Amino acid sequence: MQPDQLTASNLSPLTPAYDSILTLAPYQTGKPIEELTREYGVSDVVKLASNENPMGCSPRVTLAITEQLGQLSRYPDGNGYYLKQALADFNDVKVEQITLGNGSDDLLDILARSFVGADDAIVYSQYAFVVYSMLAKMQGAMDVEVPAHRFGHDLKAMSQAVQDNPNTKIVFIANPNNPTGAQLEQKELRQFVASVPSSVLVVLDEAYIEYSPESNNRALLDEFDNVIIVRTFSKAYGLAGLRVGYALSSVAVAELLNRIRQPFNVSRVGLAAAAAALADQDFIEKTRQMNDEQMRWLEKQFDTLGLGFVKSHANFIMVEVQVEMEDITAASIHQALLEQGVIVRPLGAYGLPNWLRITVGVAEDNLRLIDTLRSILSED
Amino acid sequence: MQPDQLTASNLSPLTPAYDSILTLAPYQTGKPIEELTREYGVSDVVKLASNENPMGCSPRVTLAITEQLGQLSRYPDGNGYYLKQALADFNDVKVEQITLGNGSDDLLDILARSFVGADDAIVYSQYAFVVYSMLAKMQGAMDVEVPAHRFGHDLKAMSQAVQDNPNTKIVFIANPNNPTGAQLEQKELRQFVASVPSSVLVVLDEAYIEYSPESNNRALLDEFDNVIIVRTFSKAYGLAGLRVGYALSSVAVAELLNRIRQPFNVSRVGLAAAAAALADQDFIEKTRQMNDEQMRWLEKQFDTLGLGFVKSHANFIMVEVQVEMEDITAASIHQALLEQGVIVRPLGAYGLPNWLRITVGVAEDNLRLIDTLRSILSED
Repeated sequence: MQPDQLTASNLSPLTPAYDSILTLAPYQTGKPIEELTREYGVSDVVKLASNENPMGCSPRVTLAITEQLGQLSRYPDGNGYYLKQALADFNDVKVEQITLGNGSDDLLDILARSFVGADDAIVYSQYAFVVYSMLAKMQGAMDVEVPAHRFGHDLKAMSQAVQDNPNTKIVFIANPNNPTGAQLEQKELRQFVASVPSSVLVVLDEAYIEYSPESNNRALLDEFDNVIIVRTFSKAYGLAGLRVGYALSSVAVAELLNRIRQPFNVSRVGLAAAAAALADQDFIEKTRQMNDEQMRWLEKQFDTLGLGFVKSHANFIMVEVQVEMEDITAASIHQALLEQGVIVRPLGAYGLPNWLRITVGVAEDNLRLIDTLRSILSED
Repeated sequence: MQPDQLTASNLSPLTPAYDSILTLAPYQTGKPIEELTREYGVSDVVKLASNENPMGCSPRVTLAITEQLGQLSRYPDGNGYYLKQALADFNDVKVEQITLGNGSDDLLDILARSFVGADDAIVYSQYAFVVYSMLAKMQGAMDVEVPAHRFGHDLKAMSQAVQDNPNTKIVFIANPNNPTGAQLEQKELRQFVASVPSSVLVVLDEAYIEYSPESNNRALLDEFDNVIIVRTFSKAYGLAGLRVGYALSSVAVAELLNRIRQPFNVSRVGLAAAAAALADQDFIEKTRQMNDEQMRWLEKQFDTLGLGFVKSHANFIMVEVQVEMEDITAASIHQALLEQGVIVRPLGAYGLPNWLRITVGVAEDNLRLIDTLRSILSED
């Protein structure tokens, strides 16, 4: 069926596997600071909505970028030679096991495109990163959401789901999980991987691994060819603005992913900045220490305010702000915070309408958050 | 069929529409300068292989990037508010007609993903950008290559091909064309668009439009909802290293493309740099003047050397270097140039084994090219 005119209502028949896309809400990103300033005229904005590193990034990055300023007109090295060498050393893998991405979003996307067709299924957990189900919809595939256990992955139920759906191609596991902060025991995860057919790809999304070194499951790569680890420079490394991520996998999988990715998917500036950031592990250590201290402080404040939260192993914390007695909802508090220049993330899109996800800031940011939150709660 | 172990030889059954991908050679990029230095120990390298702007980019870009250095840890504005405003003004379109991409590669990819399924066809011209046929293969779709006419698009034959293949979803038209440099008459192109069903998308790839302002077919957008114009900041704007491109289309098409693109596909640095570059049209004018002068000079030199070339409307020129009498081939000359630090692009992958594509450099680069070429030709 071919429409006469292309309009929003008749584009659908033209898009082969993507009829569901027009019904799919675009991914809701954390509100950019510039946008809040435009919309509300608020100038002194604290953004605790996108799990960015509030300490910025390593000072070495500035130098690395400055060195590239005379070369902006040159395409990036499509093979990412230097960054891949550095990542191979850092992770003790072969260069041929690495695929670079325009952020880890790009890698998740490439994985879905490479392995998931309309007759296939993607398995993931309730309350896990919302992009997993969006990827299934984009491929026109089945998305199998497995109920969470205490806000974390229920690996036994997920193993059962894979067994029940023999068309499963990818299982996504976020560890630590976003937005709940839950982490998985290594032993339990190993058992899970061993329990699924070796032809099912187990994608471990380790975007927050630097905040939880004990969640590092690099060792599984040597044991299982179907394990893929996806990481990013957007969180602890503080390079969200530059879009660099990477996947570690078997050589065979990496060879396929590298054929499907766009040849220049990572920018020249991104390649140089990521290599410089990786070399500065002191910065990562400082980031982790600051995050740990501030996380403990925030937990205390939430206790004092009488707000429930989920123990988190990452750089954010999920807080329950429904106050049943009064007319206070997570949405109203999110809005009130916004109007006072504090951006946090509401979790309605995750099926958690009573919760807010709050990125751990530096001391000053967190103080501002808690003061603002306290005044909002006492007003009502 | 599920393999026991994932290896290069048995991954294929796991990839739904992509059995052809493993047989597909990865896109051959221009050799990066760093790589030549590593491989041959040549230091003073001239790269005339990727149609980059040899004058670099606008000096305003450096300032724009410097302003972002304190914000690298922040995600880019996923809506690209400021850049899209500037592009809307510049192109006299609505903001809602714009889709930003991680280079125009990203947009071509998003277009194929959005509209082309395994039962569909993509129509393009012989000797056009090699990525068009790769996109068809990635989607598991049919690729219909229409023989070129004098190294340019044969629009009558392409119209016939669309008629012969009612499953055609996209026709790609590169204008000016890469790698031949041919350009299309506006009147002829309008007739072509009018001749195909309005449900077939006509994608005008205007990557080199700044070098050939008379090829600007922006006006077709107002007349035809199925026209999409794709442009890039990688060529005349000199930002290949930063990966920014954009598509202009109907609002309905843009709305779909914006749902399929990754939410942060363009980096913070890329957004800022592109807006600064767009604002400096004097730089584009200087670039065009330099390119015109140097193109004329190169044409003369090729005449003198007795080498054939195709009249080009872009910032590169295709030269025939097969010398039948002697044992000289395009491949051997490409290699000899490489060993002397001059990188050009062999066109074997385009079915033009006797031709080299040479980017127009600044005077000094072109002199070096011609001197090196002359000495290679006289040696043999």
